[in-house]
Amino acid sequence: MKCRVCGSRAAIKLREHNLSLCEEHFLAWMRRRVASTIGKYRMFGRGSKVLVAVSGGKDSLALWDLLSGLGYSTLGLHVDLGIGEYSALSRRKTEAFAASRGLELLVIDVRALHGESVPERARRGSRSVCSLCGLTKRYYMNRVAYEKGMDVVATGHNLDDLTSALLSNLFRWDLEHLAKGLPYLPPSGERVKARAKPLALCTERQNAAYCLLSGIDYVEEECPYSEGATFLELKGVMRMAEEISPGTKLRFYTGYVQNAHLFGRPFDEEKELCDLCGMPTYVGRCAFCRTWRG
Amino acid sequence: MKCRVCGSRAAIKLREHNLSLCEEHFLAWMRRRVASTIGKYRMFGRGSKVLVAVSGGKDSLALWDLLSGLGYSTLGLHVDLGIGEYSALSRRKTEAFAASRGLELLVIDVRALHGESVPERARRGSRSVCSLCGLTKRYYMNRVAYEKGMDVVATGHNLDDLTSALLSNLFRWDLEHLAKGLPYLPPSGERVKARAKPLALCTERQNAAYCLLSGIDYVEEECPYSEGATFLELKGVMRMAEEISPGTKLRFYTGYVQNAHLFGRPFDEEKELCDLCGMPTYVGRCAFCRTWRG
Repeated sequence: MKCRVCGSRAAIKLREHNLSLCEEHFLAWMRRRVASTIGKYRMFGRGSKVLVAVSGGKDSLALWDLLSGLGYSTLGLHVDLGIGEYSALSRRKTEAFAASRGLELLVIDVRALHGESVPERARRGSRSVCSLCGLTKRYYMNRVAYEKGMDVVATGHNLDDLTSALLSNLFRWDLEHLAKGLPYLPPSGERVKARAKPLALCTERQNAAYCLLSGIDYVEEECPYSEGATFLELKGVMRMAEEISPGTKLRFYTGYVQNAHLFGRPFDEEKELCDLCGMPTYVGRCAFCRTWRG
Repeated sequence: MKCRVCGSRAAIKLREHNLSLCEEHFLAWMRRRVASTIGKYRMFGRGSKVLVAVSGGKDSLALWDLLSGLGYSTLGLHVDLGIGEYSALSRRKTEAFAASRGLELLVIDVRALHGESVPERARRGSRSVCSLCGLTKRYYMNRVAYEKGMDVVATGHNLDDLTSALLSNLFRWDLEHLAKGLPYLPPSGERVKARAKPLALCTERQNAAYCLLSGIDYVEEECPYSEGATFLELKGVMRMAEEISPGTKLRFYTGYVQNAHLFGRPFDEEKELCDLCGMPTYVGRCAFCRTWRG
């Protein structure tokens, strides 16, 4: 198996592209791939200030490395959810990566700010840990992006995440979520910045290979609360479909993007501002403040 | 495992309905299920004349048995495609079933009518066997329904067929086919009758169980040309999704029916009549006549 560019020994075969590449040319391919995804979906431009949501996993660390390598002005945001050793390890690896690359990182420590971790707070309320985790991360992404004057929030969602979520939303014909699965969502009002997924066309495997070959030390553990989660099982379903016909995930997602307008407009109807924190909300006090500030 | 209706030993467990039934109550459940599907999707009424497309497999024989048992006026149509021993066996089992039930059956023998079997004709042309088989069966369903003054053509497509086709069409975002995957399609002009799929909400397994418990002898072999067909492999993908969350196939398909209008109108734009046979065509001579009549 030889690199299609230089003919030396290939380090990876990308079956969905029928392409084998050596280490050097795979890393270059990833950089071009991400740059072209950003351009194709008009995510942001040269001078944009990008808040990168960084969990410490392969996807978000690869994203941060790629964006800073491409010359974008980035600020990393890590939310420490307080999920035992998993969160501690995630934070350590994120901080170590930022330090090694000289990148600016902001850490939100949920327990330090609110006196409880996400699992502790979930135990006292009606939201599941996963639901509360999502609410908390989304809130801080929006809030920090607004307060720091960033132009866009970039997340590390990969092609496997997006196609398994798409499949789940199609199985349930959840039109609201089907309208919002796009790689780029424009800003909504003054206070919710644009959201971008520059790794939307990169697979989990490509992102892991990028980290390995770039010497990026990432958290390999899955969150302990994700065990048996349907979205993980649907990744297996998509993997089977991809085995049957390589390129299925890519065609499925890019075709979706072209046709997502069929499912309606992707905008939230958050017209009011929360009376406590000033961030947008459907009505009255926002869900975050209701949960975390009584 | 006991029958939910009468408490005697259950013959089958329907996991997607969380329902166990004995032989008698399963057969009654199937009759009600098909009757309610016909009603729910307004397929046809009490006095309708139904042309039943019968291959000799479990689905079409179960369908014919159920429709005639429900009191509908039916005519069976079997197209003998000339695919070696597979077609010979299919025809024999169809004829035996019709004779045993005293049902009227019309057999179209492709080789007798056109001098060649479907595989023989395919070998001389650009269409694959599967494409030519589909063209030929659709043509005779429409033509016989028109000439015999039937109101509707009923086919034995089951929930597994329909969800694997739906998944395939979604993977490719094939909007034309996504608009047409409905359980009922209204007539198109004078000469193309309505098409109905009364087993749309019944699984392959339910249809097979119905035949076994009703003593219906059906062809168990798959067509030799279907080996490795993508649609068969996608059935495996749907089976995996169903394992993860029982009821997925049913929710996926019924949700699709509610939302199919998003993909446009399901009608063909066949405005002309074929200059040779008089059946509708996009332009000039129809594909069937071009293929089978030079």
